[in-house]
Amino acid sequence: MATADATNLSSHCRHIADAARQAASGLAVLDAELKNAWLLASAEALLKSTSEILAANAQDIAAAPDYGLSDAQIDRLVLDEQRIAGIAQGLREVAALPDPCGEVIEGQTRPGGLQIQKVRVPLGVVFFIYESRPNVTADAAAICVKSGNAVILRGGKEAAHSSAAIVDVLRRVAAEVGLPEAAVQLVDTADRAAVGHFLKMDDAIDVTIPRGGEGLIRRVASEATMPVIKHFHGNCHVYVDAAADLQMAVRITENAKCQRMGVCNACESLLVHRDVAERFLPMVAEVLSGHGVEMRGDQRSRAIVDMPAASEADWGAEFLGPTISVAVVDSVEQAAEHINRYGSRHTDAIVTGDLRTSRRFTAMVDSAAVMVNASTRFNDGSQFGLGAEIGISTDKFHARGPCGLRELTTYKYIVHGDGHIRS
Amino acid sequence: MATADATNLSSHCRHIADAARQAASGLAVLDAELKNAWLLASAEALLKSTSEILAANAQDIAAAPDYGLSDAQIDRLVLDEQRIAGIAQGLREVAALPDPCGEVIEGQTRPGGLQIQKVRVPLGVVFFIYESRPNVTADAAAICVKSGNAVILRGGKEAAHSSAAIVDVLRRVAAEVGLPEAAVQLVDTADRAAVGHFLKMDDAIDVTIPRGGEGLIRRVASEATMPVIKHFHGNCHVYVDAAADLQMAVRITENAKCQRMGVCNACESLLVHRDVAERFLPMVAEVLSGHGVEMRGDQRSRAIVDMPAASEADWGAEFLGPTISVAVVDSVEQAAEHINRYGSRHTDAIVTGDLRTSRRFTAMVDSAAVMVNASTRFNDGSQFGLGAEIGISTDKFHARGPCGLRELTTYKYIVHGDGHIRS
Repeated sequence: MATADATNLSSHCRHIADAARQAASGLAVLDAELKNAWLLASAEALLKSTSEILAANAQDIAAAPDYGLSDAQIDRLVLDEQRIAGIAQGLREVAALPDPCGEVIEGQTRPGGLQIQKVRVPLGVVFFIYESRPNVTADAAAICVKSGNAVILRGGKEAAHSSAAIVDVLRRVAAEVGLPEAAVQLVDTADRAAVGHFLKMDDAIDVTIPRGGEGLIRRVASEATMPVIKHFHGNCHVYVDAAADLQMAVRITENAKCQRMGVCNACESLLVHRDVAERFLPMVAEVLSGHGVEMRGDQRSRAIVDMPAASEADWGAEFLGPTISVAVVDSVEQAAEHINRYGSRHTDAIVTGDLRTSRRFTAMVDSAAVMVNASTRFNDGSQFGLGAEIGISTDKFHARGPCGLRELTTYKYIVHGDGHIRS
Repeated sequence: MATADATNLSSHCRHIADAARQAASGLAVLDAELKNAWLLASAEALLKSTSEILAANAQDIAAAPDYGLSDAQIDRLVLDEQRIAGIAQGLREVAALPDPCGEVIEGQTRPGGLQIQKVRVPLGVVFFIYESRPNVTADAAAICVKSGNAVILRGGKEAAHSSAAIVDVLRRVAAEVGLPEAAVQLVDTADRAAVGHFLKMDDAIDVTIPRGGEGLIRRVASEATMPVIKHFHGNCHVYVDAAADLQMAVRITENAKCQRMGVCNACESLLVHRDVAERFLPMVAEVLSGHGVEMRGDQRSRAIVDMPAASEADWGAEFLGPTISVAVVDSVEQAAEHINRYGSRHTDAIVTGDLRTSRRFTAMVDSAAVMVNASTRFNDGSQFGLGAEIGISTDKFHARGPCGLRELTTYKYIVHGDGHIRS
């Protein structure tokens, strides 16, 4: 799908977008049967194409040093038979999920007999921009198509060959089962300016979902003329209340911070009520230092446990590594205000045994997920039972928190009468 | 609230936005009681302030010729005792609606015991830009605050005095009942550049809702850095199927076109199946000409009824007056394709007695509301039982169709555990 001629790029992108729009019209009137047939047959076909996919992946791995990838990044890029089996299994799991389209969200009969139904329908065309892991290519295609949308995929150049091999399989199977082939299209990463063109095509693309670094997301949000579902960073907090079970608070803090440090729902900041700070901070410091985590504190924390001072920037930071900021607060209200000021509206937790305090915290904290006596790490699609997710939205508009199938839909009103006219 | 010093306008707008954000934090944790008390007391206070409001309105009416308003526009601007009573009644009706905030949209207990609730919460701060009718000022304030949002109102300059008098009452009552006064703020229309400042304040404003001409809406959509709920024009269709009751089709076309011509859910285009065109078009032409409506047709329509030719632009036009475009189509599929191509995704109707055809039409037509044997005029908040609306969205994202209280909300996940950590 490469287009060497840069002057033709604009019309090349237009062609892709129009084909997606056309495919979306077809997908919108499909029931689950054909979509599931495509998912299941694609799973089989991916397994059968293992050697071709591994050969393509080997090209990406060979090129990885040229892109300056770290060992950890290369590890995420590598496919093997087991990982391809995992990708195939992912498609089967999406096939097993209920079709969100056609769901009657609500309905009523109005006085006079007019029947009104609010019915879930696809958004239409999704433009998905993502990082380099090849499995995301298959996951995103599956989620978009199952929810009735056509998708234009723009993955990282580091996984270009692997993604192309996977998309080839998905499109071949689409043609075989009778799904519109343009339901899944992959943009050639050699066409670097293509993203800019697509971001202006609000007549053909209904939503853009960027997943990656903050710079990418900010660029997309400012350039796009269609709606964007942003997946920003997570500066997640754990607040240990005066009425907390302190052993539980240590376990939750440890899990939220250390179970996986490089993810958006990991804890980056710890707030402790003044009444328990003297007992709790030494306890948690011992456990965190065992994981190699550095605490950076405010004045009151540092009076209890020896640690470097937290800077103003530290309160807003997403460390994604072995650092945590620590502050002592006077009340649940002060904790909530701190979180609403410095947090990223992603996931924030309270540890408390007091009901009034937990109700106050969950009401005041303005985040996608507010946890009571549970780790921040639970905020994701699979843990919430969504089955599959295309990301975790930090927006409040349309989709908040984990974005699964339903978050890629809208609705229409279908109204039945018997010749009703308005008087 | 005027700020004469243009160099201070930016900080003046920032002050308004920050005050709204602060008020929104307070509103988010209020239950319905105080919000309803404010609505009911405001209704009383508006009635008691009738003479002040009428005096302010007289200033607007006196200035109207300077703004070049037509008689019809001036009529919409005029307040009298009855209209003020109507505004007060509107506030009482919003008070009687259920509070959308706190609604548990869904909930589940996950394997392992984690309890997950998806709870409706306010969006936060709404920036509402609207045309000149003074009653919209009170309606919008009521809908925004009842749904837990602070609102920054920017009405038309033609109603500036009337709007200011109404907002003065609403804010005075807010102070009396203990609602944050900055829940409702009115931007001085003398500060012409204020809109541009607000449209960049995505850190403080959660959604902008422009209601007015297409130019305004396009400008807002392109300048705003926060989400926008657009209320574009309505190019609504009636499709008369081969299996239609033709008498019913005439009644519905007449109602959709003529009951009120200047509104967004009025019919602008008529599609007729070829099998009934020869019988139907003369019937409907007689009724429409009785209302002074000019038909503009395609070749096949003009072979049946004498009428001017429709131009390409006519198929996409929102006439808002006594003109309708007419085309003959071969099938329900061709009707749906025409509607999806030229329509505005607002409201489109089919008249048919055939179940398969109606299912096909409702599935294929990609509009906010699809009517079967009912007039397009039914697509509005009160007819749908939403109680009150701030507009009819032609977007697919977040809110589609009539926007009532719930469309001004988002949700958060509230998760309860007993010390749950992720393994």
